[in-house]
Amino acid sequence: MDQLKDIIRNIPDFPKKGIVFKDITTLLADAKSFHRMVDLLAHRYVGEKIDQIVGIEARGFILGSALAYKLGTGITLVRKPGKLPYKTRSISYELEYGTDTLEIHEDAFKKGDKVIIADDLLATGGTMAAVVDLVEQFGAEIHECAFMAELEFLEGRSKLPEGKVYSLLKF
Amino acid sequence: MDQLKDIIRNIPDFPKKGIVFKDITTLLADAKSFHRMVDLLAHRYVGEKIDQIVGIEARGFILGSALAYKLGTGITLVRKPGKLPYKTRSISYELEYGTDTLEIHEDAFKKGDKVIIADDLLATGGTMAAVVDLVEQFGAEIHECAFMAELEFLEGRSKLPEGKVYSLLKF
Repeated sequence: MDQLKDIIRNIPDFPKKGIVFKDITTLLADAKSFHRMVDLLAHRYVGEKIDQIVGIEARGFILGSALAYKLGTGITLVRKPGKLPYKTRSISYELEYGTDTLEIHEDAFKKGDKVIIADDLLATGGTMAAVVDLVEQFGAEIHECAFMAELEFLEGRSKLPEGKVYSLLKF
Repeated sequence: MDQLKDIIRNIPDFPKKGIVFKDITTLLADAKSFHRMVDLLAHRYVGEKIDQIVGIEARGFILGSALAYKLGTGITLVRKPGKLPYKTRSISYELEYGTDTLEIHEDAFKKGDKVIIADDLLATGGTMAAVVDLVEQFGAEIHECAFMAELEFLEGRSKLPEGKVYSLLKF
């Protein structure tokens, strides 16, 4: 796991001064690391009956798609407003400054569908908490929220359903 | 192939009146179709030495990631301005109204790297043409531009390198 952590690049002062950004693109671009990351995450769910992987725009599409392919499920997209062409359900949530909105197609889930929601990084947890809320409004069951990496000091986990959060790499 | 075409949903008058939008989310969400789509595309490249898959934000990340996983390569991201945290090279290109810009990390490719650029849909071809131009500026070699689907009547193919464009589904 340390090898996977080490390949993630630190970018000081991005997106603003004082923040050290975890740049996962170096992991994604490295064939061996990318495969190992997907396999380690997918292995956790082997033998579970998962109906859908949910990928959060935009970087959540990457883990979501590889995970869906590996686990033999489809992938459902959570997107920013106006990007999904069919009828949608949406949720708005608060950011540090202002609010943001996410959408899912209104026919995305059947009641009782068991889903994994995928994103690259668990930081403050606000986005994932909103997606959990939205997915649950469909009557779908959240099996787990799966992340490539987690910034533990931001305590985003505390905003998410207890016992249903997994991150492969912890910082 | 007809089954895959049939599962793509038509959305009339999106994003504007008179356009029938091809909604690929129905294909992505269907486990069997999603797998078949990825396998059929990947099969084309088995035995080729591909160094990187390039995925174009945002829907190109989906095909790109599954293809990279299946082919045993990494994935390099093409993103909208300000999204990539490290130093970038960028390209601007003209849209119907105004211009758009895309970025790639400046250390994304080594000279001579053989890459496949992935996106969901070939329409007018403007975005892919810009990405081809940008990737070639690195001295990388484009093996093919791979699309899930192509709108042939828009003739986007004419903007792209001859003989290096493949789309699984044609409309």
